[in-house]
Amino acid sequence: MTKSALQIARAAYQPKVPAALKGAVKAVDGEMTQSVADQEEIKKLFPNTYGMPVITFEPADAPQELPAVNVGVILSGGQAPGGHNVIAGIFDGIKAANKDSRLYGFILGPGGLVDHNYMELTADIIDEYRNTGGFDMIGSGRTKLEAKEQYDKGLEILKQLNIKALVIIGGDDSNTNACVLAEYYKAIGAGVQVIGCPKTIDGDLKNEVIETSFGFDTACKVYSEVIGNIERDCNSARKYWHFIKLMGRSASHIALECALQTQPNVCIISEEVEAKNQSLDDVVNYIASVVATRAENGNNFGTVLIPEGLIEFIPAMKNLIAELNDFLAHNEAEFKQIDKTEQRAYIISKLSKENSELYASLPEGVARQLSLDRDPHGNVQVSLIETEKLLAEMVGNRLAEWKAEGKYKGKFASQVHFFGYEGRCAAPSNYDADYCYSLGYTASCLINAGKTGYMSSVRNTTAPADQWIAGGIPVTMMMNMERRHGEMKPVIQKALVKLDGAPFKTFAANRENWAVNTEYVYPGPIQYFGPTEVCDQTTKTLQLEQAK
Amino acid sequence: MTKSALQIARAAYQPKVPAALKGAVKAVDGEMTQSVADQEEIKKLFPNTYGMPVITFEPADAPQELPAVNVGVILSGGQAPGGHNVIAGIFDGIKAANKDSRLYGFILGPGGLVDHNYMELTADIIDEYRNTGGFDMIGSGRTKLEAKEQYDKGLEILKQLNIKALVIIGGDDSNTNACVLAEYYKAIGAGVQVIGCPKTIDGDLKNEVIETSFGFDTACKVYSEVIGNIERDCNSARKYWHFIKLMGRSASHIALECALQTQPNVCIISEEVEAKNQSLDDVVNYIASVVATRAENGNNFGTVLIPEGLIEFIPAMKNLIAELNDFLAHNEAEFKQIDKTEQRAYIISKLSKENSELYASLPEGVARQLSLDRDPHGNVQVSLIETEKLLAEMVGNRLAEWKAEGKYKGKFASQVHFFGYEGRCAAPSNYDADYCYSLGYTASCLINAGKTGYMSSVRNTTAPADQWIAGGIPVTMMMNMERRHGEMKPVIQKALVKLDGAPFKTFAANRENWAVNTEYVYPGPIQYFGPTEVCDQTTKTLQLEQAK
Repeated sequence: MTKSALQIARAAYQPKVPAALKGAVKAVDGEMTQSVADQEEIKKLFPNTYGMPVITFEPADAPQELPAVNVGVILSGGQAPGGHNVIAGIFDGIKAANKDSRLYGFILGPGGLVDHNYMELTADIIDEYRNTGGFDMIGSGRTKLEAKEQYDKGLEILKQLNIKALVIIGGDDSNTNACVLAEYYKAIGAGVQVIGCPKTIDGDLKNEVIETSFGFDTACKVYSEVIGNIERDCNSARKYWHFIKLMGRSASHIALECALQTQPNVCIISEEVEAKNQSLDDVVNYIASVVATRAENGNNFGTVLIPEGLIEFIPAMKNLIAELNDFLAHNEAEFKQIDKTEQRAYIISKLSKENSELYASLPEGVARQLSLDRDPHGNVQVSLIETEKLLAEMVGNRLAEWKAEGKYKGKFASQVHFFGYEGRCAAPSNYDADYCYSLGYTASCLINAGKTGYMSSVRNTTAPADQWIAGGIPVTMMMNMERRHGEMKPVIQKALVKLDGAPFKTFAANRENWAVNTEYVYPGPIQYFGPTEVCDQTTKTLQLEQAK
Repeated sequence: MTKSALQIARAAYQPKVPAALKGAVKAVDGEMTQSVADQEEIKKLFPNTYGMPVITFEPADAPQELPAVNVGVILSGGQAPGGHNVIAGIFDGIKAANKDSRLYGFILGPGGLVDHNYMELTADIIDEYRNTGGFDMIGSGRTKLEAKEQYDKGLEILKQLNIKALVIIGGDDSNTNACVLAEYYKAIGAGVQVIGCPKTIDGDLKNEVIETSFGFDTACKVYSEVIGNIERDCNSARKYWHFIKLMGRSASHIALECALQTQPNVCIISEEVEAKNQSLDDVVNYIASVVATRAENGNNFGTVLIPEGLIEFIPAMKNLIAELNDFLAHNEAEFKQIDKTEQRAYIISKLSKENSELYASLPEGVARQLSLDRDPHGNVQVSLIETEKLLAEMVGNRLAEWKAEGKYKGKFASQVHFFGYEGRCAAPSNYDADYCYSLGYTASCLINAGKTGYMSSVRNTTAPADQWIAGGIPVTMMMNMERRHGEMKPVIQKALVKLDGAPFKTFAANRENWAVNTEYVYPGPIQYFGPTEVCDQTTKTLQLEQAK
């Protein structure tokens, strides 16, 4: 592996950790817990792991001699900056307790456990990946651990390797499954603890007890760097409107955080669109009105941020997609007979009035994506829709109408961008490097303390790392019952943007100013070696949430 | 203007300058010069500014008391990181010589000179923009200074403001025009010197005497940062081929530099495609064969870099576009009558056999762009063609054919990206901050030395800044005669990638290894505060060129 100059310099970085983790620790039990909702059902489903106390690690008076332990680790789901540091933290933690402890990595995600695909992670390997981005040390995958056969198959290799604890690094679904696995292994007396770690750039795995998921900080900083650069270009060339779509699945946390960092002219928040029951037309009108207002001031340029999940949050679009899925499923054969050039008209003629009108209003390319590019189950693939192009085109059309009516006199030209893969594997910021390492180290403490069904937790992270609080949260505490694929299931509540939360309220209080005036902020690239106010600040989102 | 933490910290950076510029300087004449070609014609066109000597600035024994001078500055063409530092260098340079000197900025490019749109750049303003990206201090524009009326109109405001020298910061065309203006003002005895500065992220303004254009370093580093992040994602998820198009107009310098920094599996160099007379089919086959080879090793992922100008360098595509332009111009009325869904078939039936076959082989979206989305003159807009999608789709189709023939057994899924606006206004790297400031300061020295028709030059820039050589190059020295819009014109030779140059040869010697093996390098974000080997290295291109 050829290393860049920065990688070489960065390898030596020693992550900052909570004071309590610097020596021997003891686990201190807090209050017993309840799930956030549906307590009776969750309790019934998790008889062995429900209601456990929150745990905090505090410095122990004397170092303990602990037995050697073999630990397995899995990276689950999409990449997020800092995953390698979680693994390094686990490694250092179990080695500090007993140098004969061993760490095994399962290859390419949960599938590696089921398929018995693993490697031992020795000091040489770990050192090669400290403070690096990516999940390439052991790879990741999207296999869901949901079936008893998978658990039993996994147990075979865990027994064979004498693994006493498994750390699953993943998002809300993966941690839900980790908890189900913990419950199962406890129920059958398998002797394997399961610990979760909160990972996702999307920022949607957080709650009263988990401040943030790792990777959100770094990914948002990378996106904000390039958004800031685009804003500066926009403000220099003064001739384009840039429509920028941002990854983040359903939740708009990434778009909101990037808006707080870069102060664009427009940022759409899906959760608000849904709460206000806005139509696509409303969103288009809103953006077009900002364009028109700026044009009156001679500013025929601007920047618009769009969250990836927007389309799914527009109630009317949701209805259209549902009817399309249904209609196409029932008329597959007939639809296939229609000549390609006639398909659009055919669909328009068949849908209900409301959906037909909405479908007819969509640009041709998007209409085609909706009807043709469906997944193997025949469903519309919402994630493939180029929302940034859709909005740019529809805003352009709306402005042309307004121009014809004499309501708008500006010039409108657009550029589109989509950022996602650019940030998921960036080298972690100091915050994520420290947070991830601490999460991993804390996971090793939970293992040493014999815990299972817990998520590793590091809190108070807007304070200096010294003052961070390390501990464990029972995963059942974050659960409620939700309908998934038609069945009620216990799952960790996904955190969407709260419209009464400080981050959104701060954005909402400023957006009119940002829309009309040009108040761009240029965050620049992540820095690793400079002053602490440049290198060590975490997201605006977390700072605002913690300030409340 | 709200400033980010990094901007605030970075404002204090004092650019490094050549030792000679640290005190009083004297201009030392070198050899008299000749244009690179067409000497007789160039000499005739530039009787007053042809054949002047190369100038080098050396420390003067005693500081000179110089008269105050009013200077104008213009940013011309596309944004490039460091423009503000050029202006800061000019400002500091003329103020160091006489504190009563003044600097005026013409607003939104050369048009500001013609339209008498300007602002005085005072210390307050300059300080606000030191070491920042963008051209937003005075804006830029693409008006070409080519006509006598423009020169005369500009002279009015120059006289009115008592401006004795004008610095034009631009690419090859803008510097050509700067030289024509210098010649004209000298010929009519206007008493206004004109100095050029080499700017363009594209890297195509360089030659024996101008090592590099400013902004190339920073832009390539930003693109390489995100390309590296994508490669790491690619290598972690192991399921996508990423097709990444890079800005850079005709030349492939940016793609080549990014390839040297990130070691992707494929990088197409337009100049090589042209030299080898390759067809689009050849390019598709080459990429598909790399995909197939990697698939045999179980690697169904990879990264492909594509230069923006590729299409224009494929001889067969050039022919197709020429025939299409010609055909559509002559059959405009008839073409408009054809139903949209029939246009493709119509064109296929009308073109020559060779072009008809090529046109038929193009994906539908691209074919539509070629025939419909034409510019106001009716010409095909090559820059709008989404080459990254075109190639991803055609490679996918080719692999499907090979699969049917049993020649390929892998899986192929692609993601596309285009990077350009993300890097043009990034805050300058240390190299560009230093280089730009030095170029500006050197321009002030050329002004003080009474020179006109010169380009500011700073050389030996792979050495520490202390050892850089500051001076001036007569712009006529870089000129030859070229056909432009049907007319022979004196222009600065555009620098394309040299296939016998060290950067390309280094790439070519390694690309087979990079194709098959996964040798990605992750450069990470530009650093400003770390060790010198991380913060102060310039491009691989320049290092390889200077090492020869």
